[in-house]
Amino acid sequence: MSEPTASAPKAAELAALARTLDAADDLAPVRERFALDDVVYLDGNSLGALPAHVPDRMADVVRRQWGELRIRSWAESGWWTAPERIGDRIAPLVGAAPGQIVAGDSTSVNVFKALVAATRMAGEGRTEILVDATTFPTDGYIAESAARLTGCTLRAVTPQEVPSALGDRTAVVLLNHVDYRTGRLHDLPSLTAAIHASGALAVWDLCHSAGALPVGLDEHGVDLAVGCTYKYLNGGPGSPAYLYVRSELQPRFDSPLPGWNSHQDPFGMSPSYAPAPGALRGRVGTPDILSMLALEAALEVWDGVSVAAVRAKSLALTDFFLRCVSEYSGPGRVQCLTPDSHAERGSQVALRCADAGEVMKRLIARGVVGDFRHPDVLRFGFTPLYTGFGDTERAARILGEELAR
Amino acid sequence: MSEPTASAPKAAELAALARTLDAADDLAPVRERFALDDVVYLDGNSLGALPAHVPDRMADVVRRQWGELRIRSWAESGWWTAPERIGDRIAPLVGAAPGQIVAGDSTSVNVFKALVAATRMAGEGRTEILVDATTFPTDGYIAESAARLTGCTLRAVTPQEVPSALGDRTAVVLLNHVDYRTGRLHDLPSLTAAIHASGALAVWDLCHSAGALPVGLDEHGVDLAVGCTYKYLNGGPGSPAYLYVRSELQPRFDSPLPGWNSHQDPFGMSPSYAPAPGALRGRVGTPDILSMLALEAALEVWDGVSVAAVRAKSLALTDFFLRCVSEYSGPGRVQCLTPDSHAERGSQVALRCADAGEVMKRLIARGVVGDFRHPDVLRFGFTPLYTGFGDTERAARILGEELAR
Repeated sequence: MSEPTASAPKAAELAALARTLDAADDLAPVRERFALDDVVYLDGNSLGALPAHVPDRMADVVRRQWGELRIRSWAESGWWTAPERIGDRIAPLVGAAPGQIVAGDSTSVNVFKALVAATRMAGEGRTEILVDATTFPTDGYIAESAARLTGCTLRAVTPQEVPSALGDRTAVVLLNHVDYRTGRLHDLPSLTAAIHASGALAVWDLCHSAGALPVGLDEHGVDLAVGCTYKYLNGGPGSPAYLYVRSELQPRFDSPLPGWNSHQDPFGMSPSYAPAPGALRGRVGTPDILSMLALEAALEVWDGVSVAAVRAKSLALTDFFLRCVSEYSGPGRVQCLTPDSHAERGSQVALRCADAGEVMKRLIARGVVGDFRHPDVLRFGFTPLYTGFGDTERAARILGEELAR
Repeated sequence: MSEPTASAPKAAELAALARTLDAADDLAPVRERFALDDVVYLDGNSLGALPAHVPDRMADVVRRQWGELRIRSWAESGWWTAPERIGDRIAPLVGAAPGQIVAGDSTSVNVFKALVAATRMAGEGRTEILVDATTFPTDGYIAESAARLTGCTLRAVTPQEVPSALGDRTAVVLLNHVDYRTGRLHDLPSLTAAIHASGALAVWDLCHSAGALPVGLDEHGVDLAVGCTYKYLNGGPGSPAYLYVRSELQPRFDSPLPGWNSHQDPFGMSPSYAPAPGALRGRVGTPDILSMLALEAALEVWDGVSVAAVRAKSLALTDFFLRCVSEYSGPGRVQCLTPDSHAERGSQVALRCADAGEVMKRLIARGVVGDFRHPDVLRFGFTPLYTGFGDTERAARILGEELAR
């Protein structure tokens, strides 16, 4: 098919190194908690793999909770309180104390809640929303809608430009913790501090960081945050997103989507709205229970796993991948968009190359699953819970072969 | 325990009549499509029963589609197009041609989309939203938020007051097709016509009518509609709601939640928003696939079932229930809140009685499941797909016994 681009001794050395790294990996046994096959699955930053115990759990939810208990499950199976219970399970993964997160709705809907509520908490005369110009597009679209409905102006700036863009008029800044395309990790502590120094509120989108690295929401005084749960949290396709509202701000959180689930007495069926205290006020309508409880079950793979250990392994994996890519692909075939500095790297590697769409198709055909981002980016996500160094070496080797074709 | 309130010959006569009615019921075999037990389940207007084939379908979705195909399922298992495919499956049940409904989000979120978009389509100077004062509360709370964000005023009126409340300033009217508490069916054709005659738009909430009676969205020119799918559509706990936008209005549908799923080129990842054509523009973020596909599977119980037949049986069931309640409970023990006229009756019977909460608990303990609505209402929902006349007689008989205690 193709000439190997690294010498055979070099390949043997990398494979041996991978075995050594896998043998020393304390997280290696966690892989057994997932239903995996021989594929090297490097797309957990798009859809996390299936935790092995989830199918039986879902069978119970469907057959017994819905099928037998039916309506009684709202109380007896804990359906009604699932959004806040799951929020509290996510909380330690993003550095939040309990009572500040609820699960539910999509990330887009939660961005809307967070931004509109933030503009309502902003000081007098603060009528500008700053949004990450490099964001996953939906955040920008929703920010535009929030600005339009609240009479604010909207300005798109890169995270690097945020400090100089902040001013007396800034109400809120919406930023991504990790850029979905390049895998660049932004400096949440210092950007949050700069935003606060200007008197504005910070809203962070954690879709590409939660479950892959420490976030420290409470420690860094983040005001509001949103995130999805189907990437590094492995909650299942389209599993519910979540909303974090810092406890001090909760009394002033004034939702643009005040559905009955956020009422202080939802079953009182009062015609007038009175918000529940705490994180509950981020709820809206009846939650998607099947998706919600699959997510709750999936979060059990985190039992006994520390985010610090995950972060250490994530950096070791991406370091090793970059080294292997360099060895196997040779110079000039790919351009790495992901920062080399650990402080600026999430848990994915983005490589720009010619014909990226075609290259990714061939990789997938050969059992290495990453994804393609228009127009020329190969994305490889590293989920330390189930990705090993051997997988990583194999992926880089096959990529090198395909690039050499 | 208690004296029977109907004579034994009378009870025997009603039981015999129930058997005759069940024997003549063309829909009786449809009950086999559900996982049911000996309980008389009259709470399908809150959570529909489990269709028997759904557990196996969900096992496949979880184990194979998520667990084995993983990310490929977005294309290969049709995940991406589920919202509009499911919308088209719901369409005939509510009298809509294809291409006008998308499934996704909660009812509350869809009410928000519909109301804000409607105010944007309303004529010059039309800045008042009318909302059903008797509505399920969430619609009112969301309407208040929509009014606040769009600079409109909000006025709560009963459906009966709508014609006289309409005027040059009316932008949109949000009405419930069936009152969740009393089971009263409102006159959708004539109210929609009155709303249109005044130059306003009509938004209907179909939560308590879809799947229980003909709606005729297209026939009656309804502008926008929303509904849940976990009641008479049996989609599962908190299953996704849906949004209908009449095809002629779609080009002007300007969503307040323009998430990336509603973009004309969602994978182009453009920083600027351009809405998809058609019903797709009602989508927002990534759909909850597990809940979505359970709903899709559940809708198969409708194969070969006509809504007209369901409506005919529904009226026969509620007529028979009211007759049995009258015979078994005697005069004065309960007050029926549901209209006697077929033209004004949905598919539930609401009875007001003393100690309603306690009475319902005792009914449930005896295998008759309805629900209690604060402060004094017993609600019994009749799902013609799986409720028979024998069930109905038994429920009324046990109710009579409990009321006589």
